[in-house]
Amino acid sequence: MSPPAAQSPVFADLQDAAARIAPFAHVTPVLRSRALDGEAGAALHFKAEHLQRGGAFKFRGACNAVFSLPDADAARGVVTHSSGNHGAALALAAQLRGIPCHVVVPDGAVRAKLAAIEHYGAILHRCAPTIAAREAACVQVHADTGGTVVHPYTDPRVIAGQGTAALELLAAQPDLDALVVPLGGGGLASGSALAMQALAPQCRLYLAEPEGAADGARSFARGALDLDVVPDTICDGLRGALGAINFDILRAADARVLTVDDARTVAALRLLWSRTKQLIEPSSATVLAAVLGNPALFRGRKVGLVLSGGNVDLRALATLLE
Amino acid sequence: MSPPAAQSPVFADLQDAAARIAPFAHVTPVLRSRALDGEAGAALHFKAEHLQRGGAFKFRGACNAVFSLPDADAARGVVTHSSGNHGAALALAAQLRGIPCHVVVPDGAVRAKLAAIEHYGAILHRCAPTIAAREAACVQVHADTGGTVVHPYTDPRVIAGQGTAALELLAAQPDLDALVVPLGGGGLASGSALAMQALAPQCRLYLAEPEGAADGARSFARGALDLDVVPDTICDGLRGALGAINFDILRAADARVLTVDDARTVAALRLLWSRTKQLIEPSSATVLAAVLGNPALFRGRKVGLVLSGGNVDLRALATLLE
Repeated sequence: MSPPAAQSPVFADLQDAAARIAPFAHVTPVLRSRALDGEAGAALHFKAEHLQRGGAFKFRGACNAVFSLPDADAARGVVTHSSGNHGAALALAAQLRGIPCHVVVPDGAVRAKLAAIEHYGAILHRCAPTIAAREAACVQVHADTGGTVVHPYTDPRVIAGQGTAALELLAAQPDLDALVVPLGGGGLASGSALAMQALAPQCRLYLAEPEGAADGARSFARGALDLDVVPDTICDGLRGALGAINFDILRAADARVLTVDDARTVAALRLLWSRTKQLIEPSSATVLAAVLGNPALFRGRKVGLVLSGGNVDLRALATLLE
Repeated sequence: MSPPAAQSPVFADLQDAAARIAPFAHVTPVLRSRALDGEAGAALHFKAEHLQRGGAFKFRGACNAVFSLPDADAARGVVTHSSGNHGAALALAAQLRGIPCHVVVPDGAVRAKLAAIEHYGAILHRCAPTIAAREAACVQVHADTGGTVVHPYTDPRVIAGQGTAALELLAAQPDLDALVVPLGGGGLASGSALAMQALAPQCRLYLAEPEGAADGARSFARGALDLDVVPDTICDGLRGALGAINFDILRAADARVLTVDDARTVAALRLLWSRTKQLIEPSSATVLAAVLGNPALFRGRKVGLVLSGGNVDLRALATLLE
């Protein structure tokens, strides 16, 4: 069975998602730092999604998807493949609704994230670390259980849910000049684009993407999806290939990709740790790396940055610090 | 010249301190964690002093001391010896008042903390890492400059300032059953005792002290100061010897010392990092280690815990994680 062609969500879907997840999700704080404003020469407003339930923005989309399901579908559970944060988020959302959650995880996934997925009661299904193997395993679990597949970033319910982070940020700070979000598969980025177009059309959307997983930059340069990239980056949350629906939304919003190399991301990570005392994961630091690496774009501006998650593997982190 | 015998501050001094520092200090948030409540079987309320300016509660006392000075005294500057957070805090407070700050720092002090002290414009004076050498250097700098010596924890203005953290916590949560603070020299602990006696007499005060620097536990056991301890603990903020004035205040408040070994502190540190995403320093984790190590005292209770600071040396941290 092939899924129906996904229909792009619109702003009203974000508003519905915000209402649907309100009983479960945190309205995360917006953090400021004098020291980082000084480094950037800009007024930085960090949306702290590492303080979201499950430790990442992913809970928003997962929660919206799980609580959108009719009861009969929900009873058969949900299925996904995920390198980590989406799997944990879907597991938590399913636990809150009291339904089964099946998660296909690739070998080599971050240990802390697998522990979180199991902690929330999901059933793990291991597979080889290729996109093809992950999707095949997902199809098999779907066939076995009848559970609803919730894709980590192309599912319109997920996109609408992820957009609620920018919705909150822009409701609090409607006069942002720029919004910078990490770009992996594009769920957060495309949801943010929909929020921004409705609430802050003057705002420019920038997508921080690791140089080692720059399918987004290539796709924007070509004007068509170009996924011929083997991800090689410490940003384990940003290795997914940009989705077609996400790409379309981002192009319509005139988003601009800023690539950052891992060395700059690690420097930004250390700066964020020491200045804000927030234990964010490497993917989250790409946004500050993008701002610091492009002063001409941001100096003197009011900038929103989404810190996407804080699920760091402490052992892996130790090696980053040496 | 010898200083006048310090007079113990009273609750009104805490209220004055709160008003005096209000234009400069943050009212830090109180953090909750479902996961940590589950681990402890208690309702934990974390006062997030790592989010205070300068990255530690120390700014409260330093700010109160600096802004208490008459203009003529202030113009000659302030002097202190400090293994780190107090030095940085005094430097920041002096910078805010526009006066010189001299800091005597022992060899071997944490690199990140020295960088912070210099960042705030203080003049560093190095000395051997013994208490005698530190005090002698302090006296010399005082003689050379005429600056006012602000002791890190026996100065009554400092004690009153440190007490404002518990003042805020108890104003927000007046029905705490227990309050747990780290014990080093006793500035935070004694200030907290004064706040607690006035605002929450039903609350019991517990002092989390590293086993490797247990002069507090020995002093309470003997009923008299017993400083015959060579500190050996990863909690670099808690190596100071308990002050006489602090000990007197703590005894009057019927405080109880709970010692924790470094292994439990490191386990609590990792738990706090992974569950709250807050990058606190080892000294801050003693309070959770004390709660988890003494379930009979805390299970089912409403507990306040002061997270004292977040000035971690990232390289030292990496070795803790291996």
